[in-house]
Amino acid sequence: MGKIGFIGLGIMGHAMAGNCIKAGHSLAVYNRTRSKADDLAARGARIADTPADAARGADIVISMLSTPDVVEDAAWADNGFAPAMAKGAIWMDSSTVDPAFSRRMARRAAEAGIRFIDAPVAGSKLPAEKGELIFLLGGGSPDIKAAMPYLKAMGKRFIHAGEHGKGAALKMVFNYCSGLGMAVFCEALVLGERLGLEKELLLDSLPGSHVVMPLITGKKHKFATDEYLPEFPLKWLQKDLVLATKSGWECDVSLPLGNIGKEIFEMAKVKGMGDLDFSAVYKFMKENY
Amino acid sequence: MGKIGFIGLGIMGHAMAGNCIKAGHSLAVYNRTRSKADDLAARGARIADTPADAARGADIVISMLSTPDVVEDAAWADNGFAPAMAKGAIWMDSSTVDPAFSRRMARRAAEAGIRFIDAPVAGSKLPAEKGELIFLLGGGSPDIKAAMPYLKAMGKRFIHAGEHGKGAALKMVFNYCSGLGMAVFCEALVLGERLGLEKELLLDSLPGSHVVMPLITGKKHKFATDEYLPEFPLKWLQKDLVLATKSGWECDVSLPLGNIGKEIFEMAKVKGMGDLDFSAVYKFMKENY
Amino acid sequence: MGKIGFIGLGIMGHAMAGNCIKAGHSLAVYNRTRSKADDLAARGARIADTPADAARGADIVISMLSTPDVVEDAAWADNGFAPAMAKGAIWMDSSTVDPAFSRRMARRAAEAGIRFIDAPVAGSKLPAEKGELIFLLGGGSPDIKAAMPYLKAMGKRFIHAGEHGKGAALKMVFNYCSGLGMAVFCEALVLGERLGLEKELLLDSLPGSHVVMPLITGKKHKFATDEYLPEFPLKWLQKDLVLATKSGWECDVSLPLGNIGKEIFEMAKVKGMGDLDFSAVYKFMKENY
Amino acid sequence: MGKIGFIGLGIMGHAMAGNCIKAGHSLAVYNRTRSKADDLAARGARIADTPADAARGADIVISMLSTPDVVEDAAWADNGFAPAMAKGAIWMDSSTVDPAFSRRMARRAAEAGIRFIDAPVAGSKLPAEKGELIFLLGGGSPDIKAAMPYLKAMGKRFIHAGEHGKGAALKMVFNYCSGLGMAVFCEALVLGERLGLEKELLLDSLPGSHVVMPLITGKKHKFATDEYLPEFPLKWLQKDLVLATKSGWECDVSLPLGNIGKEIFEMAKVKGMGDLDFSAVYKFMKENY
Repeated sequence: MGKIGFIGLGIMGHAMAGNCIKAGHSLAVYNRTRSKADDLAARGARIADTPADAARGADIVISMLSTPDVVEDAAWADNGFAPAMAKGAIWMDSSTVDPAFSRRMARRAAEAGIRFIDAPVAGSKLPAEKGELIFLLGGGSPDIKAAMPYLKAMGKRFIHAGEHGKGAALKMVFNYCSGLGMAVFCEALVLGERLGLEKELLLDSLPGSHVVMPLITGKKHKFATDEYLPEFPLKWLQKDLVLATKSGWECDVSLPLGNIGKEIFEMAKVKGMGDLDFSAVYKFMKENY
Repeated sequence: MGKIGFIGLGIMGHAMAGNCIKAGHSLAVYNRTRSKADDLAARGARIADTPADAARGADIVISMLSTPDVVEDAAWADNGFAPAMAKGAIWMDSSTVDPAFSRRMARRAAEAGIRFIDAPVAGSKLPAEKGELIFLLGGGSPDIKAAMPYLKAMGKRFIHAGEHGKGAALKMVFNYCSGLGMAVFCEALVLGERLGLEKELLLDSLPGSHVVMPLITGKKHKFATDEYLPEFPLKWLQKDLVLATKSGWECDVSLPLGNIGKEIFEMAKVKGMGDLDFSAVYKFMKENY
Repeated sequence: MGKIGFIGLGIMGHAMAGNCIKAGHSLAVYNRTRSKADDLAARGARIADTPADAARGADIVISMLSTPDVVEDAAWADNGFAPAMAKGAIWMDSSTVDPAFSRRMARRAAEAGIRFIDAPVAGSKLPAEKGELIFLLGGGSPDIKAAMPYLKAMGKRFIHAGEHGKGAALKMVFNYCSGLGMAVFCEALVLGERLGLEKELLLDSLPGSHVVMPLITGKKHKFATDEYLPEFPLKWLQKDLVLATKSGWECDVSLPLGNIGKEIFEMAKVKGMGDLDFSAVYKFMKENY
Repeated sequence: MGKIGFIGLGIMGHAMAGNCIKAGHSLAVYNRTRSKADDLAARGARIADTPADAARGADIVISMLSTPDVVEDAAWADNGFAPAMAKGAIWMDSSTVDPAFSRRMARRAAEAGIRFIDAPVAGSKLPAEKGELIFLLGGGSPDIKAAMPYLKAMGKRFIHAGEHGKGAALKMVFNYCSGLGMAVFCEALVLGERLGLEKELLLDSLPGSHVVMPLITGKKHKFATDEYLPEFPLKWLQKDLVLATKSGWECDVSLPLGNIGKEIFEMAKVKGMGDLDFSAVYKFMKENY
């Protein structure tokens, strides 16, 4: 059993940290809003005052934060965790960021004598709680092997996508699919209702069929009740589409659907839906289409 | 066992007619290209010279054709099947058309003393061959009940969506999902490859996951080999998106994703990919994005 | 001087009819809302009870109506003007319709022994009032020559685009430019304001420059005051984009910008802005982007 | 008369530097490809070996470069011009960059004791050669006043848009209009041709009309001959749309048309048209729509 510094206790991070405790690892946790760590402390985690404090003496630091800027700050700004890590320790970044950012973090980590893995996850709240996440991994095989005891506490499938940045790249593709798949399903739902079909009939026949991604099935009750408790907030999905289209520009590929989808989520965000679940794009379409 | 007039022996129609024979019904089949009926004739079907000829004496006429115009011609032009049908017989139109068209056909059928069901199907070649189609039904319950012995020969699930036109409407929504879902997946695939990920890795990790519609799994070999033998030709998918956006206009609903997706398939069609499977939109994107 | 039957007294038709009177022609006018004809009657026009009544004895019938369906009804339904026209008389349709519709009207007119010109106009309220419209003409040269005395009463430039339907086609292209040009300018304006630039500065520097279509200059006060008294109602512009994209589909051409622009105007229409000037798309963007 | 360090001798910079010489200023010029400076040297300019060399002793440094990265390098990397400038000297950046970049450059300049103006231009090759550019200015009024003798050598109209970054912001809006206006015109042109209208007729009737931006008139011969000698290369226009949509994201505004337009130019770039004039998007559409 190892020592983990865990940075970031949002919906996902909190569930992942909990599973690390359950697996018997020893945790020091850091979160900007300290109260989110209380129940983890009750289960034996130490609450750290700063990212650096969480990292000291850890075998591995796991970061699960919202944007590249936030990750960079937590790692390298005053009291950042990276300089506080022991030489040879592993930094596993599970945040959803762009591949170029992961590659840059890997270089800085190497300069600081620490090992880096980009390890974003496919799956949201429920699989995070069950320890059934899919990890999309970028980095060297020995480093990934060394991280495996920790990965196994949180996930059930581990895809080594290639060198640094490739885990982030694969995650980007997953979120591209889920974000645009969501927008497509919701536009279809709105079309169906305007054509005079019952919402209930649509929700009974489309989710679970061969033309709708399985993720939708778990969201059926949201569409049915028009309540969008966030499992994955719309604003983060929108950010992911922004990062994807930005990466698309950097590697000179056209992405017309992604660019339009991004603007639709942007319009929903402007309407104040950024903190709702990203399935709330249905609510946006229903009210504005 | 009943007497069926079967009009239209494309990929889908041919498989459906075959299952009707297998179920013990007696068939008269009509197709513009007569040779497509040969093997059905070998299995006992009578080859009709005209649509009208196929319809005479039938308990039910099943039409499985490409566009509203083609359906209207086969039914009502010279030697059309509709006027040749017995009073009270059922016309089941399984073609993919727009709801307004189905409603119009229902009215004309009623005037001619015949019963109408719009009965398009979800599922393509393979489920058609296995008799495992999902039928999306519009029309009166007694008529649908009367058609059930024939439906059961071809399908495994039967969704009664409402009155005339609602089957067509639900089919429109299914194809909206599958067409745009395909375009989203292919754009994601191209993005992933440009980000440096292996196509093999992408095809191993995305299809079958919670963010990709199950339909894609059956197409994996097409993307892998870059061969696009048509199960559902791209030009018909494009036509369905045109009909959907046209219907969207008629019921005053905005459909930005659908309208862009439609244009992407249009561009692929212009490149000569109309007769390939609609998954060939990947080939288009790869070559043009 | 000739005898004119004038059908349709909207913003444009009313101004055009007025100029025909001013030029000395004798007019019988028809409008569904009869009161719009009152001031023309005061200037000597006869108010007709039906389209047919306006057409009887006319040398030329000029129609200026809103949609293909409305034109078809006014011409050919009960009390329609076409059958009431003298053999050899000219029907000039100045409505904005699609080319396929104009070609169909030309064929029906020929069968009825009357001559047809498609003659939509570029220019809105002000040039209509000043008799400075640009006529975009489709049809035979002798027919256009015969119509010239009437055309000159209403316009200042006459472009013979080709055979029947080509006038309508050219008009379609003009409105495509003006509608999408408007949407582009308004999106740029909103972008500029969000970047922190003063609206006044933007309105001072962009309109009249080489990157903005001259039409915008006459609309500056609308953007400045946020009032959108209709010169050309948004709902008709949206209809024109629908017709254009429909024609685009019929001639197998991709139109991604047009299809997205169409949906933006559709969303504005859904928000209740259909009867405002089409420049109100700025208001829509400001409130929703 | 003053001493100018001029950095960047592309199509625009070369013409602007020439006008500065003509106005009697003393120039030191720097360009990565040295040969582009030869004719300016023949007219009296000194060719500098490095950006720093060009800046030494200058009253003002004018930079006219391609992207934010290139500007940043030329100013601040080894042998960059900024640290070589005299305290109180003016750096006028006429490159097309994003507002956030200009603000950042202004801050760095202030820290280094030099004065900064963002001064991008509206207008391309011809107005640059004639000294008839429109300057869009951001920065303090005294600084702009001090730069006026130089500005007047190159331009005819000077719009002070506000503090630092506002010149860049206004330029962004200008290019947004010209880029998307070009795409709209070209899509309309292609639509018109597919509707059967002669290209000649379209080029005779649309440019110069109230629905087409005046910029198009100067490009008519390009469309007519299908040759696209670059006045403003497509790849830079595409970059400007990328910067605009990126800025749009930073200030949380939706830009659906801009995002689609950007992807269309991207597709043209992928087809190898990046170094052609941006009007070559017509050629792209003609071949791919």
